[in-house]
Amino acid sequence: MTTSGRTPTMWDVARAAGVSQATVSIVLKGDAGSRVSAATVDRVREAVSALGYRPNATAKALRERVAELVGFIGDEVASAPFAGEIVEGAQERAWQDGQLLLVVNTGGRPDLEQAAVEQMRSHQVRRFVYASMYNRPVTLPPTLAGEEVVILNAIDPSEATWSVSPDEVQGGRAATQHLIDAGHRRIAMIDIESLESGLPAAVGRYEGYVAALEAAGLPVETDLVRFGGGSPEHGFEHAGALMDLAAPPTAIFCGNDRTAWGAYQALHERGLRVPDDVSIVGFDNQETVAPFLRPALTTMNLPFREMGWAAADILLTGGATQRRGSTMMRLHCDLVERDSVAPPREAS
Amino acid sequence: MTTSGRTPTMWDVARAAGVSQATVSIVLKGDAGSRVSAATVDRVREAVSALGYRPNATAKALRERVAELVGFIGDEVASAPFAGEIVEGAQERAWQDGQLLLVVNTGGRPDLEQAAVEQMRSHQVRRFVYASMYNRPVTLPPTLAGEEVVILNAIDPSEATWSVSPDEVQGGRAATQHLIDAGHRRIAMIDIESLESGLPAAVGRYEGYVAALEAAGLPVETDLVRFGGGSPEHGFEHAGALMDLAAPPTAIFCGNDRTAWGAYQALHERGLRVPDDVSIVGFDNQETVAPFLRPALTTMNLPFREMGWAAADILLTGGATQRRGSTMMRLHCDLVERDSVAPPREAS
Repeated sequence: MTTSGRTPTMWDVARAAGVSQATVSIVLKGDAGSRVSAATVDRVREAVSALGYRPNATAKALRERVAELVGFIGDEVASAPFAGEIVEGAQERAWQDGQLLLVVNTGGRPDLEQAAVEQMRSHQVRRFVYASMYNRPVTLPPTLAGEEVVILNAIDPSEATWSVSPDEVQGGRAATQHLIDAGHRRIAMIDIESLESGLPAAVGRYEGYVAALEAAGLPVETDLVRFGGGSPEHGFEHAGALMDLAAPPTAIFCGNDRTAWGAYQALHERGLRVPDDVSIVGFDNQETVAPFLRPALTTMNLPFREMGWAAADILLTGGATQRRGSTMMRLHCDLVERDSVAPPREAS
Repeated sequence: MTTSGRTPTMWDVARAAGVSQATVSIVLKGDAGSRVSAATVDRVREAVSALGYRPNATAKALRERVAELVGFIGDEVASAPFAGEIVEGAQERAWQDGQLLLVVNTGGRPDLEQAAVEQMRSHQVRRFVYASMYNRPVTLPPTLAGEEVVILNAIDPSEATWSVSPDEVQGGRAATQHLIDAGHRRIAMIDIESLESGLPAAVGRYEGYVAALEAAGLPVETDLVRFGGGSPEHGFEHAGALMDLAAPPTAIFCGNDRTAWGAYQALHERGLRVPDDVSIVGFDNQETVAPFLRPALTTMNLPFREMGWAAADILLTGGATQRRGSTMMRLHCDLVERDSVAPPREAS
């Protein structure tokens, strides 16, 4: 059993054993050969045993009856680098009930959304995940009104529809707190969008930053807060400007990993080292970026698999038709510690 | 019409206009407002007109009849950063015929593959794309024997089944030729795996490198060819060793962008600049990496959308049941020129 009480999946095993899902798959197929070390095979087997993972349960559930289909409608989600994780999480949960995902990506176009939903209905799809590429306020398209729907990686401000999204405020607070705990007192933030954008990630991460500073009795200095556009270029520009201040920060909380990458480049250009001269925390734990920066980036993980899993779980347990309490489910973002944070050079 | 004669899609428009698919979508919805500049709106409209793109054709095709389903079975493909593009390409082509994709990701597990295929059959799926996370030799699982199947991003060495994969040899040759054309004569290669691995990407890119050198009358120097594991760490280690040679290379062809990133880090650490001191070409055009290296990385594009499109096209035009000529379709990899290549400092 996992700590959350749900049936363990292959990626719970992967996480517990500290290996990739592909490695778990290879070991479970008895196909390790020379590709996986004996120690790793042992670790995977221990995790399987400790979690009570039953590798054949999913296939059995699928075989036992004709699969129903869950519709998964994404705007641009399938193009995003994390697309696989969010879809896999939903699929894992659907498979536990012997159901398959029917995935369409509509580019956010209303005509395609409508046509796709109509076609899905003709295949007896009665439950829908409506997924967004990034966390934003969404309005359900009219074609989905009255259906069992969960909004994924976005929020419904009206709370008329269930939504599952990351807890941006908690994440921003945890990231900032990690820098405070390391001894930093002058902590800058480079956000990924303006607060006027209304983007939950931009607003929430900033709110978390402010909350952590205030709880520690530290001032929020407007000089130390910058608003970029979320790309490495913005991180480069704003981190450079921050370091040119008369009293530069000793740490920067970057609103995403791409911004952090740009900050590294700006510091490098100035002959400053991470974390010796400046500590950095990112956000997103982008798998193609965060582990490969030098030094590897400490950042906040976005729980994509867990969100996909939770959205399907709400649908399959009938939760989407219930309206008791809040319909906004916000999932915890974990700190992923790597090598970009150290105590400040001297107490300030 | 596109140059290949197929019906233009939203991403053809995006490419022609030099904008993202999301921007095309916004403009087509008449939703540009202040988010898209007037010049960009004009560029998108010109591309729509020049290509003869009909934005409503897909929705119309979907509405005209009950959609058939095309099964899309991936091993780990849905976790890969390019997953969205390959699925979107297949989806675009399927939608043109009013068909939907039923996507499952099996982690390569035979029991799940079998259960998923059986369930798909119960939903009248008669055509299947069998997609791989990376280009490798695959054997079709027994459960798909006798079905209409196209193997995607992999090859079937027996040629019993149609396959669509990138032309690795052409790509490796073009990457190397680009460095030769810039004037380089001592060109190293850091491959992503050993040749014994049999991986088409590792073997093919190396063959292309050798072919380009030989055609230019240049020797293949074993000292200048290194085999890593495709991660930034490997690029860092091997690029460092290459630069420590008595006669270091003036250019490095890296077998993928992640390796190139590591090479940048190694050069940076030695105080060497890209491209002034060493030119670099990568491979993959990984969207989260290549444009954001400093300087931005010149690399080879993997035609994921086109491959997804072609696989669905073979299925929908009945090609998968035909056995005339070769069943291995290899798609061209384009050079994406950015800023990491310059002439060598002095003729050697």
